[in-house]
Amino acid sequence: MALKEVVSEGDTVNLRDEENSFYLLLKKGETFTTHKGIIKHEDIIGRVFGDKVTTHKGHEYLIVRPTFYELIMFGIKRKTQIVYPKDSGYIALKLGLCPGMKVLEAGIGSGAMSIVMANIIRPDGVIYAYEKEERFIKIAIENLRMASLQEHVIIKHKDLLEGPDEEDFDVAFIDMREPWECLEILKKVVKKTSPVGFIMPTTNQVTMLLKSLEEKGFFNIEVEEMIHRPYKPVPERLRPVDKISGHTGYLVFARVPQRF
Amino acid sequence: MALKEVVSEGDTVNLRDEENSFYLLLKKGETFTTHKGIIKHEDIIGRVFGDKVTTHKGHEYLIVRPTFYELIMFGIKRKTQIVYPKDSGYIALKLGLCPGMKVLEAGIGSGAMSIVMANIIRPDGVIYAYEKEERFIKIAIENLRMASLQEHVIIKHKDLLEGPDEEDFDVAFIDMREPWECLEILKKVVKKTSPVGFIMPTTNQVTMLLKSLEEKGFFNIEVEEMIHRPYKPVPERLRPVDKISGHTGYLVFARVPQRF
Amino acid sequence: MALKEVVSEGDTVNLRDEENSFYLLLKKGETFTTHKGIIKHEDIIGRVFGDKVTTHKGHEYLIVRPTFYELIMFGIKRKTQIVYPKDSGYIALKLGLCPGMKVLEAGIGSGAMSIVMANIIRPDGVIYAYEKEERFIKIAIENLRMASLQEHVIIKHKDLLEGPDEEDFDVAFIDMREPWECLEILKKVVKKTSPVGFIMPTTNQVTMLLKSLEEKGFFNIEVEEMIHRPYKPVPERLRPVDKISGHTGYLVFARVPQRF
Amino acid sequence: MALKEVVSEGDTVNLRDEENSFYLLLKKGETFTTHKGIIKHEDIIGRVFGDKVTTHKGHEYLIVRPTFYELIMFGIKRKTQIVYPKDSGYIALKLGLCPGMKVLEAGIGSGAMSIVMANIIRPDGVIYAYEKEERFIKIAIENLRMASLQEHVIIKHKDLLEGPDEEDFDVAFIDMREPWECLEILKKVVKKTSPVGFIMPTTNQVTMLLKSLEEKGFFNIEVEEMIHRPYKPVPERLRPVDKISGHTGYLVFARVPQRF
Repeated sequence: MALKEVVSEGDTVNLRDEENSFYLLLKKGETFTTHKGIIKHEDIIGRVFGDKVTTHKGHEYLIVRPTFYELIMFGIKRKTQIVYPKDSGYIALKLGLCPGMKVLEAGIGSGAMSIVMANIIRPDGVIYAYEKEERFIKIAIENLRMASLQEHVIIKHKDLLEGPDEEDFDVAFIDMREPWECLEILKKVVKKTSPVGFIMPTTNQVTMLLKSLEEKGFFNIEVEEMIHRPYKPVPERLRPVDKISGHTGYLVFARVPQRF
Repeated sequence: MALKEVVSEGDTVNLRDEENSFYLLLKKGETFTTHKGIIKHEDIIGRVFGDKVTTHKGHEYLIVRPTFYELIMFGIKRKTQIVYPKDSGYIALKLGLCPGMKVLEAGIGSGAMSIVMANIIRPDGVIYAYEKEERFIKIAIENLRMASLQEHVIIKHKDLLEGPDEEDFDVAFIDMREPWECLEILKKVVKKTSPVGFIMPTTNQVTMLLKSLEEKGFFNIEVEEMIHRPYKPVPERLRPVDKISGHTGYLVFARVPQRF
Repeated sequence: MALKEVVSEGDTVNLRDEENSFYLLLKKGETFTTHKGIIKHEDIIGRVFGDKVTTHKGHEYLIVRPTFYELIMFGIKRKTQIVYPKDSGYIALKLGLCPGMKVLEAGIGSGAMSIVMANIIRPDGVIYAYEKEERFIKIAIENLRMASLQEHVIIKHKDLLEGPDEEDFDVAFIDMREPWECLEILKKVVKKTSPVGFIMPTTNQVTMLLKSLEEKGFFNIEVEEMIHRPYKPVPERLRPVDKISGHTGYLVFARVPQRF
Repeated sequence: MALKEVVSEGDTVNLRDEENSFYLLLKKGETFTTHKGIIKHEDIIGRVFGDKVTTHKGHEYLIVRPTFYELIMFGIKRKTQIVYPKDSGYIALKLGLCPGMKVLEAGIGSGAMSIVMANIIRPDGVIYAYEKEERFIKIAIENLRMASLQEHVIIKHKDLLEGPDEEDFDVAFIDMREPWECLEILKKVVKKTSPVGFIMPTTNQVTMLLKSLEEKGFFNIEVEEMIHRPYKPVPERLRPVDKISGHTGYLVFARVPQRF
């Protein structure tokens, strides 16, 4: 009950001072260097979250436990358009993700969505993530490791369209360019009446997908989008920020038809 | 690996046909009645999700496992304004919720946010939910039971402002009318540098809270809102729906200051 | 300089008290009846905007000059989806509407967009509005009369696709189901490089229109939408209203190609 | 009927080719230089909108009549935050602007709102614009001249709070930092029951203004905001752009109380 407070090797910590913020996967023997001095990872390991660590030049950084929001937005490497927290938190609820689930994901991209899903389905659940691009897999593994969630995701270097090696999935999340191509596969390997989710950037893709979902008997079909609007946190001058994200993707959800 | 497929007593199922959708907490000995006939709960228990069940009049309903989105939007009882999935999924990521966390919540309201949090912090984590209104507690317990998550939430019939009985919380989520009143308490009982989240409907409350957060040394202060926009899922006439929610609440996040 | 203050026959006035608001096109000999009593139109004619008028039962109503926003939202009759002020005010600026312009409109619908345009292009400009549905024309004329703008709009009971009777238009605004059908006509009758605007509810229509605009050499093509968000005007509890319009239409603008 | 097609001295034209777009106030004797060559203004004057003009190096530019949207967004100089077309078109309808109106404006800023209003209230109406900052007045005059609307706006180098020199205004639009300070003045100089509009960036200002409007008996009080969302105009990949404006200002409207 309550998280461990002591920082261990393999944890990702957020080091911050008034000006900067860094995300660091701790490994004995490594060092972290800024213009304010050098810190050995071993000077952080064994400390407690909320402590301060001092560089060799005497500058202090606060050791903070990063949230998933921070890890995804600022910590992980990106080789692709990621699924943003404004969408992924909601997707988790639309898919009914819970501990123990067997999840099908394709493709994994940079792993941002895998991180959100793995955190919920652990410890007994597992994500089978299909990805045909080798360069994405490398990044995704690195990012999952940063979140200490790599053991809950089995990455398959394979196009989902070739057919997955598993079946009886509880749920699926699809982030592919032509998601309508994989609907027959979803019908085969995802449990009947289970929820499946999709994300895609264009209205044309949504139209194509909706047509196929209808044709193939999927039901409870929904299309949605989330607009995220941050404010300047100034009490006497409260107002939204000047520039916001105009679009990430359209979310589509449906349930797999019965296989009579 | 993979969820159990067999429906048990204590599960909540979604019964649906082309026209209707019902949410049912299964209990031996009980019956469910619609104008299309009667179903004994025991006719559902032991079946598999995705099966159909037949009323005494011969009408079939599909047995579906509800998602958290569906449970919260359509299944649970509401005595108060709830925290909606568009917000709660995102809040979970902003708070960095993960298995094992010790969470402080106040107030619990109808329990919609507790459901989302309990699903993530289980099996080892626990939520201590403070609520001064007895009538909300009754509803919240009922709703948590519907989601089979009641064992992960300890509800205290007490105003948080009287001081919680626990300390060393990993995170806190506050949904109170005057959240600025509880900041000193948060500083005492939430671990230093841990994230805390707030939701409130008006800009005036946000201004008041921001002032207090600054004064009391909280850092990493953020204000945001989420606008959720559903579309009509018609492939040949894709467009947003006519009426959408204009507002639920402003989200405020911050980190607890160090207690030097 | 400054508007006449005296109310005349043919004016539309807004009568209001604490509870109700009515829009009345004044005509000698007519009466207006509410449950609070009867008012003769002649009791209003000759009065000054801002005065009060008294029913035969002694109840007072304030005589207010309606804004175009109010006329369009509350005053006019609607037989069709109208172009809303959140869109029409912006459209006027995107089209560069100014006094003296010769405008092509199709279809006129209930005349809401004609009102906005006629107010700007008068006194020397003129709108030629093509409309194939006779029942809309009747409503549009009535609505334009309510706004005292009927003399600036020439309504043609004819499908624009049959070809307009005029040419050398300065600008065009198209609100038709299949606007891509009329692009060849626009190229013929709208001055080269002039702006044209379109409104349509679905993304599929936008895609169709964009394809045709590109094929036919239109340039400076833009797609936009406006989201209007009203707030509850309570100083101590400032917040957006609960329900807002989720969608009216997508706006498309382009310039007519040169006819070399 | 229909605008003049011939370009005259004093007109502002938009010169454009595939890559660039320029806004030019034409004056005999002047020249315009780009890296594609020099154009004498006199080579444009006398031509027709939609024609092409050739630089001394042989490069062609199209001569286009700018819309008000383009003039405001790309043509005018900005020394201040301007009122954007997404807001100003709507404001015009909320204020019921029409030809002949006597308008009170304060402050004028860069004149973007004056341009929109002057275009509608001409030829007989007039705007009295109060502005205490001399440097803004210079820019505003220049910008109004660019729109050929300077003769409809009388600029007073004076703080509105010192009291305007005119009265019996039909309408007022206020863009000041502390708009609540001028409500007593508005009650004196704007006709009773006439609409007044305000724009301001922060929720705190809205709260202050709402309080004062209520206290001073203004009625029909409304608060609103407009969110403008442009799309990428690609038919096969239709989607909103990545970055949009998150906020310009809150719009407040009310009617002046009767002066009993």
